[in-house]
Amino acid sequence: MRADGRRADELRPLRLVRHFTKHAEGSVLVCFGDTQVLCTASVEDKVPPHRRGSGGGWVTAEYGMLPRATHTRSDREAAKGKQSGRTQEIQRLIGRSLRAVFDLEALGERTLHLDCDVLQADGGTRTAAITGAYVAAYDACTWLKQQGVLSAWPLRDAVAAISVGVVQGQPVLDLNYAEDSQCDTDMNVVMTAAGGMIEVQGTAEGAPFSRGELQALLDLAQAGIGQLVQAQELALELRHA
Amino acid sequence: MRADGRRADELRPLRLVRHFTKHAEGSVLVCFGDTQVLCTASVEDKVPPHRRGSGGGWVTAEYGMLPRATHTRSDREAAKGKQSGRTQEIQRLIGRSLRAVFDLEALGERTLHLDCDVLQADGGTRTAAITGAYVAAYDACTWLKQQGVLSAWPLRDAVAAISVGVVQGQPVLDLNYAEDSQCDTDMNVVMTAAGGMIEVQGTAEGAPFSRGELQALLDLAQAGIGQLVQAQELALELRHA
Amino acid sequence: MRADGRRADELRPLRLVRHFTKHAEGSVLVCFGDTQVLCTASVEDKVPPHRRGSGGGWVTAEYGMLPRATHTRSDREAAKGKQSGRTQEIQRLIGRSLRAVFDLEALGERTLHLDCDVLQADGGTRTAAITGAYVAAYDACTWLKQQGVLSAWPLRDAVAAISVGVVQGQPVLDLNYAEDSQCDTDMNVVMTAAGGMIEVQGTAEGAPFSRGELQALLDLAQAGIGQLVQAQELALELRHA
Amino acid sequence: MRADGRRADELRPLRLVRHFTKHAEGSVLVCFGDTQVLCTASVEDKVPPHRRGSGGGWVTAEYGMLPRATHTRSDREAAKGKQSGRTQEIQRLIGRSLRAVFDLEALGERTLHLDCDVLQADGGTRTAAITGAYVAAYDACTWLKQQGVLSAWPLRDAVAAISVGVVQGQPVLDLNYAEDSQCDTDMNVVMTAAGGMIEVQGTAEGAPFSRGELQALLDLAQAGIGQLVQAQELALELRHA
Amino acid sequence: MRADGRRADELRPLRLVRHFTKHAEGSVLVCFGDTQVLCTASVEDKVPPHRRGSGGGWVTAEYGMLPRATHTRSDREAAKGKQSGRTQEIQRLIGRSLRAVFDLEALGERTLHLDCDVLQADGGTRTAAITGAYVAAYDACTWLKQQGVLSAWPLRDAVAAISVGVVQGQPVLDLNYAEDSQCDTDMNVVMTAAGGMIEVQGTAEGAPFSRGELQALLDLAQAGIGQLVQAQELALELRHA
Amino acid sequence: MRADGRRADELRPLRLVRHFTKHAEGSVLVCFGDTQVLCTASVEDKVPPHRRGSGGGWVTAEYGMLPRATHTRSDREAAKGKQSGRTQEIQRLIGRSLRAVFDLEALGERTLHLDCDVLQADGGTRTAAITGAYVAAYDACTWLKQQGVLSAWPLRDAVAAISVGVVQGQPVLDLNYAEDSQCDTDMNVVMTAAGGMIEVQGTAEGAPFSRGELQALLDLAQAGIGQLVQAQELALELRHA
Repeated sequence: MRADGRRADELRPLRLVRHFTKHAEGSVLVCFGDTQVLCTASVEDKVPPHRRGSGGGWVTAEYGMLPRATHTRSDREAAKGKQSGRTQEIQRLIGRSLRAVFDLEALGERTLHLDCDVLQADGGTRTAAITGAYVAAYDACTWLKQQGVLSAWPLRDAVAAISVGVVQGQPVLDLNYAEDSQCDTDMNVVMTAAGGMIEVQGTAEGAPFSRGELQALLDLAQAGIGQLVQAQELALELRHA
Repeated sequence: MRADGRRADELRPLRLVRHFTKHAEGSVLVCFGDTQVLCTASVEDKVPPHRRGSGGGWVTAEYGMLPRATHTRSDREAAKGKQSGRTQEIQRLIGRSLRAVFDLEALGERTLHLDCDVLQADGGTRTAAITGAYVAAYDACTWLKQQGVLSAWPLRDAVAAISVGVVQGQPVLDLNYAEDSQCDTDMNVVMTAAGGMIEVQGTAEGAPFSRGELQALLDLAQAGIGQLVQAQELALELRHA
Repeated sequence: MRADGRRADELRPLRLVRHFTKHAEGSVLVCFGDTQVLCTASVEDKVPPHRRGSGGGWVTAEYGMLPRATHTRSDREAAKGKQSGRTQEIQRLIGRSLRAVFDLEALGERTLHLDCDVLQADGGTRTAAITGAYVAAYDACTWLKQQGVLSAWPLRDAVAAISVGVVQGQPVLDLNYAEDSQCDTDMNVVMTAAGGMIEVQGTAEGAPFSRGELQALLDLAQAGIGQLVQAQELALELRHA
Repeated sequence: MRADGRRADELRPLRLVRHFTKHAEGSVLVCFGDTQVLCTASVEDKVPPHRRGSGGGWVTAEYGMLPRATHTRSDREAAKGKQSGRTQEIQRLIGRSLRAVFDLEALGERTLHLDCDVLQADGGTRTAAITGAYVAAYDACTWLKQQGVLSAWPLRDAVAAISVGVVQGQPVLDLNYAEDSQCDTDMNVVMTAAGGMIEVQGTAEGAPFSRGELQALLDLAQAGIGQLVQAQELALELRHA
Repeated sequence: MRADGRRADELRPLRLVRHFTKHAEGSVLVCFGDTQVLCTASVEDKVPPHRRGSGGGWVTAEYGMLPRATHTRSDREAAKGKQSGRTQEIQRLIGRSLRAVFDLEALGERTLHLDCDVLQADGGTRTAAITGAYVAAYDACTWLKQQGVLSAWPLRDAVAAISVGVVQGQPVLDLNYAEDSQCDTDMNVVMTAAGGMIEVQGTAEGAPFSRGELQALLDLAQAGIGQLVQAQELALELRHA
Repeated sequence: MRADGRRADELRPLRLVRHFTKHAEGSVLVCFGDTQVLCTASVEDKVPPHRRGSGGGWVTAEYGMLPRATHTRSDREAAKGKQSGRTQEIQRLIGRSLRAVFDLEALGERTLHLDCDVLQADGGTRTAAITGAYVAAYDACTWLKQQGVLSAWPLRDAVAAISVGVVQGQPVLDLNYAEDSQCDTDMNVVMTAAGGMIEVQGTAEGAPFSRGELQALLDLAQAGIGQLVQAQELALELRHA
């Protein structure tokens, strides 16, 4: 039993609220427990220089945190004049993860901007962001399809992400902030609905971890992502509860 | 009758949701129709250099907009590496407006940071921000009082703000984005509950405006602010409906 | 009687020196007492992106202060690597004020840059800047007319600006630095020669102000701007003393 | 057989040249084939704010690439005025990896700066940097020990890193640039001499990867790191060939 | 005879106007013909970190150009967010030149900031700046002496600067912009009143220059600086015409 | 006799290692004693805006120093977000010096980027950089010639540079860091193989210097540059030892 009463392999309560704001082509509030991230997908009819003239599109992500999303207020990155290394690392991860399930040719010469802004943080913001951004991206693709501008459906598979870690010697799923602060090993796993691995990022915070621990963590993550993918399908009304 | 069915002197539906996020000492979602601003008040136990050793505190504000709060996506200021002139102008206005009702000595040597982040924009974001920031600041003061660190209650009066403008020749209250885009004169008015004026900023967007129009706009604003102040009191449970 | 011997409704000695520097199409040193601002108008044969292909032009302003224009030296903004919020607010105000009297279509597809640099500051730098920038802009328009590139005269009216404030309970005109530092209410008013209002920006520095005080301040400002407009006409030799 | 004649599990020729430059407390040129990285370790007698007064020290890393270390010249980050997301991600990884084997208390209240500058790039610059930085850090610790300022030896274990990837369907070790450009899955593994895992970062560049491929890659990496650790010991004269 | 009617060894009309602005401890407008530079000297009662606790002071310079000081408008460095290489090179030269005649110990633990802002440019702005900054620095030292805070007079000698160059095969003194644009060799010379050389910076713009040309240019410069030093003494009323 | 045993007119041991790295069109490690600078020449098939359409090319230089090239570690300019004034001054000097021997028309509409990065510093980094950059530029021109894209050979002459200074009253050649730190006068001289002067930059660090000292320093520099030019020719195999 964990401090918040969860089993080791239990996700926090999950919410995926579509159409959370009205302007974006896709807009999803994703909650992993008290972690709340607003993911919007915006379509722009041009591509960055390295994609120009290719006929294909681009998918990119930006990540931000409201100054008081956290326990103590952090300085606003816009006021400091630069994004932290952590912010850049996370937004690069989100972008890579989403591009992994996109057929950029089918998207056509346009850019999908995924903005993931953390309204409230309690651990796992990057995995929540990837999980929510997929739903927002899906809605934006549906919007594009309704505009009649797509030659083919640009999503090849669903993608979701979860954190796992070794807390007090035990592998657990979906760490909250308190668990994350005291864990020995922290791992973020990004997978497709079909069970393929997109990203595995494991870090020893204290003692190094063993191959055995790595296996146990991957088992937990794989099961968790299965549940996330089902929740995405329910939210998108692609399946019924 | 206006495009959205309102009378000239009618506010948009107003919501003030307290405790919207959990970490901040004050956290209020304020909605003026489709304009949604998250206002948090954070207490920090130090003051900027110009206030050090004064015994008194400081109140400051920052303003931001999520990239897709608007009809078309705007670039993220943190990624561009600087805040626009518009952002700076608005956050300076919010800061001045709130300081006008604060007794900085009673606050003690601490800073109250007011972060106003626009989740969805439909005109009037700065006036919504001021109106919501007051409620968040009130909650933070109550928190400070509960900590037993205040010698006296630091708020001297309530403050709220509203926009008014001349649209198609007619003075109207609380402009939405469509009205704001076509108005001749645009004015933001900040007032106290007691009816004192804190800020009046009127700008001729097209033709110059006359003294008579100015009077008409101020009349509308004064009545509107009266309603906002009542709504603040209801939200804070200082009065009952 | 005020500290410097002026009546409440009296401007400081006013100077408008045209052709102060030799390279600019318009170059005016404007002095409101000890406040000295060099305003240059520069013509550039291209427009910013949002005006390209429109056939019309653009008018924009930048504001700066020499490091030792003030009582104590301020850091150079070029060395700090960014313009302060105050600087940006002022240059946006100057730009809007001048655009309000320009027929941008008549200007043709070119930009008029108004650079207002404070050589010496003693209160009222932004109002002096607007008043002087109009004269510099007029000279630049005359230069353009002489080049034979204008289809029509691009200035619809004159524009000038003045500060007013409540000092020790009394409304006064054209505050110097000492008065500005101790005033309760500070207001900047921008008007056309025809008496139309372009901008009204009133701020309660201490106690809030009343509708009555607002009226008294506007009366003072209106009379003061009348005198400024006459001085502009004399400087431009459009009228004789 | 790979394009450069190596077996799938074969490292590129490895060089670790100590005392490459003369000023630094540790200075190592590390070469993984044509990838050449200069790693210096510099001792500074103070710590960053979050470690002040802790009695313990800090280890941090910075990474850079000379503009023409690569096939085509890249812009100099100092001239662009900011470090790319990639640079920040890599230097954060190097810092975490080295801290994982440091006893920061034994280091005392001082900072060890590890600067890893790529003179020539041909794939695997981050893994070469970690492997070389460990040797430079070791030399700097020896220098500190000789100064008589250490209460205990601050290194708990050795650390090294290698890249592995799936190229044309086959898992291979230590990818050069050509292999890195065409691989499906790219993984960087950081391990201790004792065989503990510090970091595992696997990314699907094309198709997702399976648990089986992950195992095969980890097997390759583990064997490769064993050889790197031996080479570090030889270079440090802790063992003989 | 030169294009503007001067002999090869003739300075442009020189003006040194003291007390040009009122706030600075020293404020001098220096004109070398149409080149006009406002030099202010500001006293600050603290020193930069590398001088703290030394008992001695520091002298530093900053240089700027108003956007329309030049034939065509240049972008404002404060708006661009950084100072050009040219600006930094010039302000470093001015600082070194003035420090060369200062007894920093006698100045006491304070900083003298020399701000040189070009109001109008027509060649030779850096030499005019050095020549004017000396007079401003002298006035600031007199002010410090009058405050009774100096133990000894901190200026050891006077310093002035002039440009020389080879124009159409002929060495000439004090080049204006037109001459500077077409010269083969351009040299800036900084000397003391006693005839010692502080800086010699000669650059071949077209063909390389010979030792003989260098001698001829130094002869011209030496004579010119003699006249500048006399003009400084006249302006400071240390001698009479 | 100097501290390192050299005669006053003796250069430090000189090395010019071509093809030091493999990607650049020219890549030279130049060593003046313990000063080691890696100079690469990169060809880019476009020119900066001010050269576009001219038919001719451009030559530009950038300079950097690895953080621990020096006795104590300096902050990385890329991390600080800007290049120091010293860096900009040096890279402007290198660029001007190389352009002085280039026929930009013969180069064709392309840019030659010279990157000079200091691996180890012991005085004279800028003069070593110029001397090495010439050899790298020569190799890049040979590469261009081999590509068959040059209409004519673009180098008009060789260029080299050396420092001279007055140390303890005696003029000496090629100062190392210890000598540079204690010298009274420091001068950098850039000359062509034909003996023409490109740049002379002399600075009095302590007492001003006389015309006689200047002559003595130039004599030393001229002889030293003669030796450098021979070494360049040997390295380029244009002459034999």
